[in-house]
Amino acid sequence: MTRILFYLRDYPDTPWRDALCAEDPGIRFHAYPDWGTADDGPAYALVWEPEPGLIARFPNIRAVFSMGAGVDHLTRDDSLPADLPIIRMGDSGLQEGMREYVTWAVLHHHRQMPQFAAQQRTRKWARLFSRPAASVQVGIMGYGHLGRTVADALAPFGYRLAAWSRTPKDTPGVTHYTGLEDLPSFLSTTDILVALLPETAATHHLLNAERLSLLPTGASVVNAGRGGLIDLDALTAALAGGRLAGATLDVTDPEPLPADHPAWDCPNLTITPHVAAITRPDTAARFITEQIARLERGEPAETGLDRSRGY
Amino acid sequence: MTRILFYLRDYPDTPWRDALCAEDPGIRFHAYPDWGTADDGPAYALVWEPEPGLIARFPNIRAVFSMGAGVDHLTRDDSLPADLPIIRMGDSGLQEGMREYVTWAVLHHHRQMPQFAAQQRTRKWARLFSRPAASVQVGIMGYGHLGRTVADALAPFGYRLAAWSRTPKDTPGVTHYTGLEDLPSFLSTTDILVALLPETAATHHLLNAERLSLLPTGASVVNAGRGGLIDLDALTAALAGGRLAGATLDVTDPEPLPADHPAWDCPNLTITPHVAAITRPDTAARFITEQIARLERGEPAETGLDRSRGY
Repeated sequence: MTRILFYLRDYPDTPWRDALCAEDPGIRFHAYPDWGTADDGPAYALVWEPEPGLIARFPNIRAVFSMGAGVDHLTRDDSLPADLPIIRMGDSGLQEGMREYVTWAVLHHHRQMPQFAAQQRTRKWARLFSRPAASVQVGIMGYGHLGRTVADALAPFGYRLAAWSRTPKDTPGVTHYTGLEDLPSFLSTTDILVALLPETAATHHLLNAERLSLLPTGASVVNAGRGGLIDLDALTAALAGGRLAGATLDVTDPEPLPADHPAWDCPNLTITPHVAAITRPDTAARFITEQIARLERGEPAETGLDRSRGY
Repeated sequence: MTRILFYLRDYPDTPWRDALCAEDPGIRFHAYPDWGTADDGPAYALVWEPEPGLIARFPNIRAVFSMGAGVDHLTRDDSLPADLPIIRMGDSGLQEGMREYVTWAVLHHHRQMPQFAAQQRTRKWARLFSRPAASVQVGIMGYGHLGRTVADALAPFGYRLAAWSRTPKDTPGVTHYTGLEDLPSFLSTTDILVALLPETAATHHLLNAERLSLLPTGASVVNAGRGGLIDLDALTAALAGGRLAGATLDVTDPEPLPADHPAWDCPNLTITPHVAAITRPDTAARFITEQIARLERGEPAETGLDRSRGY
């Protein structure tokens, strides 16, 4: 019998309960606040944005699963026990969602869809010519699980692919850049920037006004990682000034974007409400039960958090 | 020496002249109106929307190349000699453009981007959940060269693929429907319709109000073929009434869409000005010289028009 303590605000828990119990009928699913007490025996937590301090009140929790690829909603809780394993979601549904979203966003900017939308608003029928994909460089910031998935999805379209990451990588067909010293040359050759980085101290406002100014004139920016990466005011200034051709943000800083924030009306800026890769119960349930089985055998989870890196 | 008589309004002829002469330095490129006379010897015409009667005035023209995949701009000219070969463009740049455009449009509707754009206009941050690609059926109308290219591009995303065509086809991974008798079952199972049909007497207003009503509630429509296929008033009525979730039209009827046409403001309708697959001089030049070589050897062109079908 595996006990799962579940926490998710605003959305129904039924799809998760059904998917997990279908995967393993031995699962006992406890949706918050019915978590019982710390004396009820070992349990695994499956949470998204739990209230601070909640996890620490249940020392019977053996590991915490984040309901998404990000874990900053957990690590910003100072009360979280330092040795408690944290596991990011790594199910195929998440990869599928990211592949779809980023492919859409890259094509959106490559094929000048924000410009056509602006023409439509003024009822103007006028052709614009797009560059061949082979002359468009897509630069992926963050080349983990999801970064590779995105590169694989974009490759058939013939884009020139580059990636920037913290540690050296080597993938055929992708030009790799490593560390802060490579960041200027990465940015200055990128026509469409795709950011997939986690929120850590090292990535916060990594794309500030100065670094955004290194992108070629007419470049576009897609952020499907975490909002804190980009100085939003600097980005909207570059868009309003016309130096950048467009941007698509699935994540913002602050998030959710307040209704009175000026970015909502920024020209050529597309905003979606953090939906690029939503964890899907059907594919996630299999992943979770597999990881629990690994932990029970004394093996580490496949996507365990390295707290020293922050992701 | 090969003589090419060139006709294209509003856009420069230099990219075409350069690309063709780079492919075959023996080419003599004559941009309209410098076509000389009918006594100047054999020539090939390379044209887009030539003025009616022009081709007939030059009996020295051995074959006419359309600068795009469509040939209706030629066949509606009654003065065109009935035995003059007409050749559609079949270069890889055209396929590349169509693959990009249709993939973008299918993801656009699958991932509910028109709905997110509407939310952005009212500064609303609210998640919407999209169906897994495996439960979304994309139905491709017209399964020639470009239809197969589009199916190949969509397959990696995991969509259920179906195709409707005039003659029976058989492709693994694609459910095929044939002829008018299959059209209702094709439409009633299609979540995202992708139309790539040519303009002929048989396709004109094929998608009228009655046939559009066969699509499931919440379906979307993409037209990257010819505008005449769809009764635009019926489509905008279905969008305004909310029965269809969205549509993307690269072609319209009338085209260009007049500035005072109500479709410009139709909810969840995206309009682009016939840019899905623009023939690119660099890839087209190779295709054209190859087809001329075939004709000179007495072989038919690869994409010669069958006048009895109209495409």
